[in-house]
Amino acid sequence: MTPQSQTVRIDLGDRSYPIVIASDLIEAPATFAHCPPAAQAVIVTNDTVQPLYAQRLQAALAPKYAKVHTVVLPDGEAHKDWQTLNMIFDGLLANGCDRKTVLFALGGGVIGDMTGFAAASYMRGVPFVQVPTTLLSQVDSSVGGKTAINHPLGKNMIGAFYQPQLVVCDLASLDTLPDREVSAGLAEIIKYGPIADMAFFEWLEAHMDALRQRDRQALLHAVQRSVEIKAWVVGQDEKEAGLRAILNFGHTFGHAIEAGMGYGNWLHGEGVGAGMVMAAHLSLQLGLVDAHLVARLTRLIERAGLPTRGAVLDAKDNAGAYLQHMRVDKKAEAGEIRFVLIDGPGKAIMRSAPDYLVRQVIDICCAQGVGIQTA
Amino acid sequence: MTPQSQTVRIDLGDRSYPIVIASDLIEAPATFAHCPPAAQAVIVTNDTVQPLYAQRLQAALAPKYAKVHTVVLPDGEAHKDWQTLNMIFDGLLANGCDRKTVLFALGGGVIGDMTGFAAASYMRGVPFVQVPTTLLSQVDSSVGGKTAINHPLGKNMIGAFYQPQLVVCDLASLDTLPDREVSAGLAEIIKYGPIADMAFFEWLEAHMDALRQRDRQALLHAVQRSVEIKAWVVGQDEKEAGLRAILNFGHTFGHAIEAGMGYGNWLHGEGVGAGMVMAAHLSLQLGLVDAHLVARLTRLIERAGLPTRGAVLDAKDNAGAYLQHMRVDKKAEAGEIRFVLIDGPGKAIMRSAPDYLVRQVIDICCAQGVGIQTA
Repeated sequence: MTPQSQTVRIDLGDRSYPIVIASDLIEAPATFAHCPPAAQAVIVTNDTVQPLYAQRLQAALAPKYAKVHTVVLPDGEAHKDWQTLNMIFDGLLANGCDRKTVLFALGGGVIGDMTGFAAASYMRGVPFVQVPTTLLSQVDSSVGGKTAINHPLGKNMIGAFYQPQLVVCDLASLDTLPDREVSAGLAEIIKYGPIADMAFFEWLEAHMDALRQRDRQALLHAVQRSVEIKAWVVGQDEKEAGLRAILNFGHTFGHAIEAGMGYGNWLHGEGVGAGMVMAAHLSLQLGLVDAHLVARLTRLIERAGLPTRGAVLDAKDNAGAYLQHMRVDKKAEAGEIRFVLIDGPGKAIMRSAPDYLVRQVIDICCAQGVGIQTA
Repeated sequence: MTPQSQTVRIDLGDRSYPIVIASDLIEAPATFAHCPPAAQAVIVTNDTVQPLYAQRLQAALAPKYAKVHTVVLPDGEAHKDWQTLNMIFDGLLANGCDRKTVLFALGGGVIGDMTGFAAASYMRGVPFVQVPTTLLSQVDSSVGGKTAINHPLGKNMIGAFYQPQLVVCDLASLDTLPDREVSAGLAEIIKYGPIADMAFFEWLEAHMDALRQRDRQALLHAVQRSVEIKAWVVGQDEKEAGLRAILNFGHTFGHAIEAGMGYGNWLHGEGVGAGMVMAAHLSLQLGLVDAHLVARLTRLIERAGLPTRGAVLDAKDNAGAYLQHMRVDKKAEAGEIRFVLIDGPGKAIMRSAPDYLVRQVIDICCAQGVGIQTA
């Protein structure tokens, strides 16, 4: 008999909090019993998730909060900007929300990141709760307190480290997720293998089909193990002074694809999928891993329904376009790009790489018809 | 022989930092010797201060930072908004600034608050240094880590608690300050008396003329004592869970005046001047202080060149207009206004007050021809 519910704790002193993983949590008032008391609560969601879950969450919060308001934002990464963030502030101020008001982020990574940054900034900080309804946000963005909005010149450039009070991962909410977004979430699950836990990587190889079919037991384990690894990393390096950057495996190339294609064209997880293949190839070029591992990773990413090739950002100088985007990555220092690479199975390192090698990898991984799927 | 330089330390564990007070600090490279190392530094200033001090600061920073950029914002509280804040982000990203880039806030409270919030949010946090060039920002806003921008529905509604690395109070920079702004700064100095230190209040009564004439020795003492009191309060309650709110003496009424008149028409210190008189009157009505103290405070505010009467915000229902603005104050809870009042000389308390009493105080303190200057 497998347990139906798991709780993982993020250990950050007085900013510690639990992540609860189970089915049918959103509509249960007991889920929110230990949330901070206040006169008002505000659900922040988007126009896709609102008709599915907002009323259920509102009903679950009603016993605890005298007033529960809902702010509905337009859906999508393209709206992760100041203008949309300001819709949250407008809603809070129009309803006379004070410094104790609790915000509830109901939706995917964009909603979580924006609601978190709004909570960090409204009156210099109000409490908030993450209720992630996508696989990607359950296993990654809702955990660890990174909040942000995009700037036209770079993704997640404006934000804060600000921890939630609670994270509620309702596996039932994944039933309504489009297949494409399940695949995007699997990208962030897969990344934990090569950087931290090859046993989990093997488990993923064995259970990829079950995960894509949304088997609840498989999802429970995948979310739990992902969150455990993330909690372990964040507990040691909350503000990304060092170790935490390994969670960005695949993200340096992935962000370049997202930015170069225009936010919202590629899903974040799709960029990470192709980005992990590129980062694995760069690791191979630097002699850190063998071709077999690159092939296994590439095959698992493909089986997750994700792209394994980078987009062509510029027909004339594609590598140049990637490099330009990657130099404004937050991990870059004085213009030098810091890559998260695999240093043997299950271990990540941060390092720079010569431009000519990076260009070579981009040429290989973005060109048509060059096989990288087989060892 | 009086010392020519003072250093006050803010004690906040690993977020501790010194406040240096002396003349001719801006142009001295030694002032910035212990600032965090980085490839780039960015001076954020406004179009009034830039021609006066930006080149000197740039020259002082040049030995330490390979590149020193300057971002010039339009001057004034009316520009303390997202649009202007975004000019800082644009400048940082256009110059490829990374997570180690150090920001220098060169100007008054608006520049300090905006640069601080930009530093808190850029890439989720970069180091910054306060170089306040107004009396108000030297004695109050540059110290303690409150950063924010305004929202059309409320002052300082969007921001962060984010501490600087260093505060540099150059008394020589006060030479170029208009008289009106010296008076505005004196409001924040005066407030420390009734809430914390009546000996300092008496010293101010004796030295008000010297301060208005910008006597350097008098200024050195006034800035030092103000910053000491603020450091003591902030050291105990960084995030305003309780005690720190006493520093907002006069601000609840003052913010209502600023918001009601449109930001930038009354200077912040002018609103605080009239606001302190109103808060003192409310303290009197509640039986907390005697009329003599109210009269002394009112006279000192008048001698500082500040208004002692509130503005009329609405000819029909002036008290109603004040109350409406005060209910969105950050100290309000569930719509109840929390006033900072004087509970006997040198001691502040936070409490609510019946609406009818507050209305009475507003009527008395805003009406024409009603004397409140004599005991």
